[in-house]
Amino acid sequence: MNAPAQASHLLPTIALRPVPQAFLDALQQRFGAQCSTALAVREQHGRDEGSLQAPPPSAVIFAESTQDVQDAVRLAAQHDVPVIPYAAGSSLEGHLLAVQGGISIDVNRMNQVLSINAEDLTVTVQPGITRKQLNDAVKDTGLFFPIDPGADASMGGMAATRASGTNAVRYGTMRENVLALEVVTASGEAIRTGTRAKKSSAGYDLTRLIVGSEGTLGVITEVTVRLYPLPEAVSAAVCSFPSIAAAVHTVIQTIQMGVPIARCELIDAHTVRMVNQHSKLGLREEPMLLMEFHGSPASVQEQAETVQELAKEQGGNAFEWASTPEERTRLWAARHNAYFAAVQSRPGCRAISTDTCVPISRLADCLLDSIAEADASGLPYFLVGHVGDGNFHFGYLIDPDLPEERTAAEQLNHQLVARALALGGTCTGEHGVGIHKMGFLLDEAGQGTVDMMRAIKQALDPKNILNPGKIFAL
Amino acid sequence: MNAPAQASHLLPTIALRPVPQAFLDALQQRFGAQCSTALAVREQHGRDEGSLQAPPPSAVIFAESTQDVQDAVRLAAQHDVPVIPYAAGSSLEGHLLAVQGGISIDVNRMNQVLSINAEDLTVTVQPGITRKQLNDAVKDTGLFFPIDPGADASMGGMAATRASGTNAVRYGTMRENVLALEVVTASGEAIRTGTRAKKSSAGYDLTRLIVGSEGTLGVITEVTVRLYPLPEAVSAAVCSFPSIAAAVHTVIQTIQMGVPIARCELIDAHTVRMVNQHSKLGLREEPMLLMEFHGSPASVQEQAETVQELAKEQGGNAFEWASTPEERTRLWAARHNAYFAAVQSRPGCRAISTDTCVPISRLADCLLDSIAEADASGLPYFLVGHVGDGNFHFGYLIDPDLPEERTAAEQLNHQLVARALALGGTCTGEHGVGIHKMGFLLDEAGQGTVDMMRAIKQALDPKNILNPGKIFAL
Repeated sequence: MNAPAQASHLLPTIALRPVPQAFLDALQQRFGAQCSTALAVREQHGRDEGSLQAPPPSAVIFAESTQDVQDAVRLAAQHDVPVIPYAAGSSLEGHLLAVQGGISIDVNRMNQVLSINAEDLTVTVQPGITRKQLNDAVKDTGLFFPIDPGADASMGGMAATRASGTNAVRYGTMRENVLALEVVTASGEAIRTGTRAKKSSAGYDLTRLIVGSEGTLGVITEVTVRLYPLPEAVSAAVCSFPSIAAAVHTVIQTIQMGVPIARCELIDAHTVRMVNQHSKLGLREEPMLLMEFHGSPASVQEQAETVQELAKEQGGNAFEWASTPEERTRLWAARHNAYFAAVQSRPGCRAISTDTCVPISRLADCLLDSIAEADASGLPYFLVGHVGDGNFHFGYLIDPDLPEERTAAEQLNHQLVARALALGGTCTGEHGVGIHKMGFLLDEAGQGTVDMMRAIKQALDPKNILNPGKIFAL
Repeated sequence: MNAPAQASHLLPTIALRPVPQAFLDALQQRFGAQCSTALAVREQHGRDEGSLQAPPPSAVIFAESTQDVQDAVRLAAQHDVPVIPYAAGSSLEGHLLAVQGGISIDVNRMNQVLSINAEDLTVTVQPGITRKQLNDAVKDTGLFFPIDPGADASMGGMAATRASGTNAVRYGTMRENVLALEVVTASGEAIRTGTRAKKSSAGYDLTRLIVGSEGTLGVITEVTVRLYPLPEAVSAAVCSFPSIAAAVHTVIQTIQMGVPIARCELIDAHTVRMVNQHSKLGLREEPMLLMEFHGSPASVQEQAETVQELAKEQGGNAFEWASTPEERTRLWAARHNAYFAAVQSRPGCRAISTDTCVPISRLADCLLDSIAEADASGLPYFLVGHVGDGNFHFGYLIDPDLPEERTAAEQLNHQLVARALALGGTCTGEHGVGIHKMGFLLDEAGQGTVDMMRAIKQALDPKNILNPGKIFAL
């Protein structure tokens, strides 16, 4: 989901490591104008779209090549200084904060498409390219890259947080779609994981280990992902329901029947109202599903008829169709702008986002109880969800000047996570752990499992210089 | 693919580690009748379906619970003795050989279905259950587990080797289908990775790290996998082609068009002849594709029509249909028995199997050059392939009493792997590395990447007791 930069909450414990002047001098010598220590640049690189705050990094390197990244990491390793990879800056859980000090490695200039292999449905890119830039670059091939987390995130960042979004219910997440990586390790070596083959049993799956490791095991310098043929037919539809429960039961049945729906998003009535005001739309202000179907014309029709029948049984209205590309774009823009619409509905507020994901059969239980709690709290909120995957986001809209509202929001988040874990789910479907969810990860995975992650981190980054202090305490 | 036990080739360097009598006494005391040191039992557990050979393990533990596995691993850790997990014994690359000595932990008695969550399309099983047993257990739910490597392999073993097989082109491999694991670590602790949620960004993807780690990072004691709704309609078809090139070009176009074909297998003319003799079939003795289509009746028809048209352009014959379940079963049994058919075609021979996988656009190049080389060698061979994934297997049929034939077969394998790697592929699509492909892995991944794997191994198994000597030298 999208979210503007809103740093409002200083972390309680920050232990900055020394950044020697000799190191900064060496950086300046190696990188010249590609190195900045200007405060404004550092501040921009020291935050993400979440609400946590820390002092900015000591310098920013604008890397233009894998070699640049290697040299920056090697110098940092010599001086025991943390490095934090940076691209779009759209992460939400404090991933980019220099909580132990250090430097930022900005890879935005590494934004080239290195090779399009249309016949194999793969493309290899540099990490700074955004998903929209990538789709522009491949649009003449008849292929597309489906993963869409809302923000125009970078491919490196999406790999690093194991991002997903609205199309994941059909096409999977970055976990399923990254085939191979080039990664700069803690010693500054560039290694390759995976190949362009669709499957492999060649040793440990380092590709999947790096995907989702949030910059703590290496800096991603190349990403090879799968592309998909543009569907012959695409139809989007909106359907309103008398209750959230009715909408959710429609989704559960759709998934259980194996309908290959491409997008299946829930928006609650509050949020529809906010979206209508913000995007000047006239959507019915009731719980709503936004859906999209991909396939051959016959298959799209078949899918839509099946879901329409299921919706009708739950009291859903007739589908309203958005069949032209322009109508679809408007509809999905409205969905992606739900965050902004919500934030504007309470001027000066900030949003605390949740990200639980549960097995589909538990979705109604998890959602309805959490809505009751949120309503009882009196905090305004919005609610959107990639419900086809069992993943949804509350955004509690707090007044940053009222600490009790933050406390109330975090309390709701805790209760929601506890509920999701009890139902067999996860604390984070797609945003990652960062700083904000370190406690939740421990609750979810258990001490032994987090210890295994930490042992891997210590083995691959013995000086703890790669985005330290994220995912688990170290 | 299926393969009978054929141990014929002693490994050149075996360095057995001591197995103290005190350790064997402690095992006997803890496990009683669940511990065997009988030679026949040990020999059965000291080999797999490949052609390599090593001395058998010193004892076999028949584990009946996670606690049993934990206790066996703890005792082994105390005495620095290797442990090798064992279930169906159907691996092909020497995975189960006690190349450094040690004991075998047989998990075949751990073969229960622990929970079926039909509404969520997931099931949790013990590692010793086989894929056929699993499908029997879930058949009343209207769901099935699609991964089919030919052999009736165990779920634990399939996870450990990242297995796939004939359905992977549509449903993915164990990489995509394992959601969560319980794993006994080198210290004897049982940890859990993953949840039943369909997606997650909660820290390192330990599930994917363990999947494919061949028993070197932990002993799998529970596996949660995805199930799929049984397709409403299934049709299988056979189509013969004037040449391998024509068959392969049909496959390439099918994949590039995004047809969601469920199975797409190539068999060459030699192998069709062997299959006809073995399975008493009357298939045309020409290069052949065996295909299966899953979906709604309309979708199956649409897919089949598309592929039929592509085949026709390449000179393929009209499809011969196998529409009843019995006909389909007979057809796929014939495919799965290709190995046995081939081996019986040269009495007393043994098969050396290859397992390369390349990007689909390179499939014709890779296959045709390798066929030319195999033909020039004069060695008899069979050729089958999961060509929809770019994965195929030569089986060179050698006389085990003629070392020059083994040398020739290994030489062909080397040339094939070198070709596949140059084309952007992998040395192993689904069989794993084991002992046999350690050199190939180094060629494929490079020293830095293999060093990263080794660093993870050393961090998680500092005494090197978990199936040591596999994947990489250690």
